Amino acid sequence: MSGPVEFWFDPVSPFSYLATTQIEALAAAHGRTVTWRPVLIGVTVLKVMGLKPIPQTPLKGDYSWLDAMRLAAMFGVPLVRHGLTGVNSVAACRAFLWLRDRDEAMAKAFVRRVSARLWVDGVDITPVRTVVAEAEALGAVGGGLAEALAGPELKQRLAEAVDQAIARGVFGVPFFNVDGEPLWGCDRLWMLDHRLAHGRWPGPGEWRHTEPSGGGAP
Amino acid sequence: MSGPVEFWFDPVSPFSYLATTQIEALAAAHGRTVTWRPVLIGVTVLKVMGLKPIPQTPLKGDYSWLDAMRLAAMFGVPLVRHGLTGVNSVAACRAFLWLRDRDEAMAKAFVRRVSARLWVDGVDITPVRTVVAEAEALGAVGGGLAEALAGPELKQRLAEAVDQAIARGVFGVPFFNVDGEPLWGCDRLWMLDHRLAHGRWPGPGEWRHTEPSGGGAP
Repeated sequence: MSGPVEFWFDPVSPFSYLATTQIEALAAAHGRTVTWRPVLIGVTVLKVMGLKPIPQTPLKGDYSWLDAMRLAAMFGVPLVRHGLTGVNSVAACRAFLWLRDRDEAMAKAFVRRVSARLWVDGVDITPVRTVVAEAEALGAVGGGLAEALAGPELKQRLAEAVDQAIARGVFGVPFFNVDGEPLWGCDRLWMLDHRLAHGRWPGPGEWRHTEPSGGGAP
Repeated sequence: MSGPVEFWFDPVSPFSYLATTQIEALAAAHGRTVTWRPVLIGVTVLKVMGLKPIPQTPLKGDYSWLDAMRLAAMFGVPLVRHGLTGVNSVAACRAFLWLRDRDEAMAKAFVRRVSARLWVDGVDITPVRTVVAEAEALGAVGGGLAEALAGPELKQRLAEAVDQAIARGVFGVPFFNVDGEPLWGCDRLWMLDHRLAHGRWPGPGEWRHTEPSGGGAP
């Protein structure tokens, strides 16, 4: 099989940001393209699941950030903990849909950009004016994005996209579907890599990353 | 550094079961020992976190089982979804503490055994009589385990162990601490492997598991 890898993102998640830095190159290395799909994890999906956001979950919140920093170092990309509260990606995700209608590559670049603006530069990407400015910085000029973000059509389309994501089982980001197989987490990119390379998940012994470092059994 | 790897387990978790099949050999391959520590994820820790158990979480529950099956295949061990409800590991974890006082290797073997009884054979490991029988099957005879499980001391010691686990940031199982670094999840054993081999977490490029399978960039 050689269809596109599906990739659900939400710029509010640091793990989604990390995935935006890796997924295109990973898929391309195996001759695959990537279909990007927006989802609103913080404001919608967690409500379906009856959960609070990870950063506000006792114990798990602190670990989650430590884990994100480790993964950022592993991917060789910057990651900065912003002190912002109440950030949401509603306008950014609606803008993605609008941009995708016009230029898919630009739409992906936009998601990479706003994700990094939040998770590297600490810029609040919630306001519509910020979203429009970030799109314009990529060259999306004169297209009526600001007007579209004020209208009902993009609102409806994003709501449908979120409903479809939930119907597809998406409960966190980044979330992938490869050849009909769901996969959650940017910590699983190595498993996605293996699957794209071999057409199957890793088997016994194939998860070992390194040779024993010596010392022998105690 | 070469201290023991700490490993928190709870037999009620399939992911904990999977870890019990791997952690000793993994650590031994790098000349490390493992200190096993009990925790009650289902009945205690999730209350601290304000979460419901993963199997009862919409969307995530179904994925979680799919993921566990993939990981079992990756480790080359059996895993069967039991249809039991209300399983808890209170008696099993108390028995572990009692066994550890007497024979640490037997205590670890006991945890491996009861974990597999639940997750391979579908045996409910909740009843005290079952726990005692499983310990006796390993050779723990005539030591007064049944009496100890009826007394207050093991109850208090397990409660303290759970409190200590929470104080150490344990919010799920399997949970590890290696050289002061917390690590959660049996899907991260490859990162633990890397850390034990190199004394650091994987860096850029080191998460790639395979060479590109060809096909080139699209």
